[in-house]
Amino acid sequence: MPTDTPQPSFVLVRPQMGENIGAAARAMWNFGLDRMCVVAPRDGWPNPKAVAMASGAGRLLDEARLVDSLPEAVADCHFVMATTARARGLTKPVFSPERAMQEAASRIAEGQKVAVLFGPERAGLENDDVARANAIINVPVNPEFPSLNLAQCVLLTGYEWRRAQGNIVDERVDMARADWAEQIEIEKLAEHYDERLTQAGFFFPEHKAEGMRTNLRNMWSRMPLTRADVQMLHGVLRQMVRWKERGR
Amino acid sequence: MPTDTPQPSFVLVRPQMGENIGAAARAMWNFGLDRMCVVAPRDGWPNPKAVAMASGAGRLLDEARLVDSLPEAVADCHFVMATTARARGLTKPVFSPERAMQEAASRIAEGQKVAVLFGPERAGLENDDVARANAIINVPVNPEFPSLNLAQCVLLTGYEWRRAQGNIVDERVDMARADWAEQIEIEKLAEHYDERLTQAGFFFPEHKAEGMRTNLRNMWSRMPLTRADVQMLHGVLRQMVRWKERGR
Repeated sequence: MPTDTPQPSFVLVRPQMGENIGAAARAMWNFGLDRMCVVAPRDGWPNPKAVAMASGAGRLLDEARLVDSLPEAVADCHFVMATTARARGLTKPVFSPERAMQEAASRIAEGQKVAVLFGPERAGLENDDVARANAIINVPVNPEFPSLNLAQCVLLTGYEWRRAQGNIVDERVDMARADWAEQIEIEKLAEHYDERLTQAGFFFPEHKAEGMRTNLRNMWSRMPLTRADVQMLHGVLRQMVRWKERGR
Repeated sequence: MPTDTPQPSFVLVRPQMGENIGAAARAMWNFGLDRMCVVAPRDGWPNPKAVAMASGAGRLLDEARLVDSLPEAVADCHFVMATTARARGLTKPVFSPERAMQEAASRIAEGQKVAVLFGPERAGLENDDVARANAIINVPVNPEFPSLNLAQCVLLTGYEWRRAQGNIVDERVDMARADWAEQIEIEKLAEHYDERLTQAGFFFPEHKAEGMRTNLRNMWSRMPLTRADVQMLHGVLRQMVRWKERGR
């Protein structure tokens, strides 16, 4: 059973190599997508090479819808998007993958069914397929080398679907969990270093001492230190002192 | 010669299979990236399997920097980011791929050199490698199935680099180029249909005629019609009339 997470279905239109179908299944499941539809696969169905390649995502192939034609694949959909590498003569909205998956997410949230079409490996979707879509998704590849394969195109689209769900880990989120040192701890660290380094004769020559002190103080404040960092830096200094004392 | 487009270098750390190195080169070049550095590849260098897989992106392998150790790879870099699948115990900023490539783009714009590290296929980067990076890049994969391979990780990062460059085709841009009909043309189209359908007895029964007229008029206004669409719709109606007349 596919998960009941609301999501677009990914429709592989006349796919050729089983390996690519399997790799597409893996790419989908990497981003939590598990509704695949396969239209008239060249080498029949089920396809043992697809199964071998899919490994951990084999369930998607078992549960895939198999249909004979594209109209059948999208019959119950409200909104259909076609991935293409080339621009077409057709007047139709062209979305970036990001914008496309935002569009998909908002339509799905309203209860619509959305499908994304992926063409056969060699030639991509035909104009007749694209004419059945409400919009085109264009991946911004290097025009000198637009060589995305089927599974890569599925991967990027799935990735954008995942991004459209939000809650992506990012610096703000993750660093917020760190156990940051408080200012008083930074202050005590600075004092500790100031005191010991004064004893050690670090602030020399005299006329530069003031500037050196300020720079050092400033450095401690500039660094994003955790409590553990502060303890470690105290430890470093204590150990140097111990080492010096042993040497006497 | 690599292009002189400012860009991060992608550092493959102890990669194993030649095929994956070749696929990584293709993935990079798909997004216009061509500065690869290879650290201690398991099967030596050059690697014929990498060359075979890279096909159109083989130049990246010819021009790749080959080094023995990670410190050597990033010696001249100002900012280093490590891609990892798992969270690490290390306190370090964790970026989404999007945020990471925005960070890379802004640092590169300021003249900094930026590197992105990709680990070996089986186990990924070691903690010792990650400790050398200034930040971590975490791809938001399905926690139940986090099976991105090396080339897929390179692909997603390259894609985000491309996105961070802006100028991605999107609906606004592309549909703006369409030759949209002006309101007067829509108006004339609506009149044409109104007139002919009145003759044809379409607006029936009488007490519903007003509502039917409004709905039809509203439909023409709601549709994003180009000049060509309008001409085609006029043609459809004219042809129906001709056909009717022939029948008499």
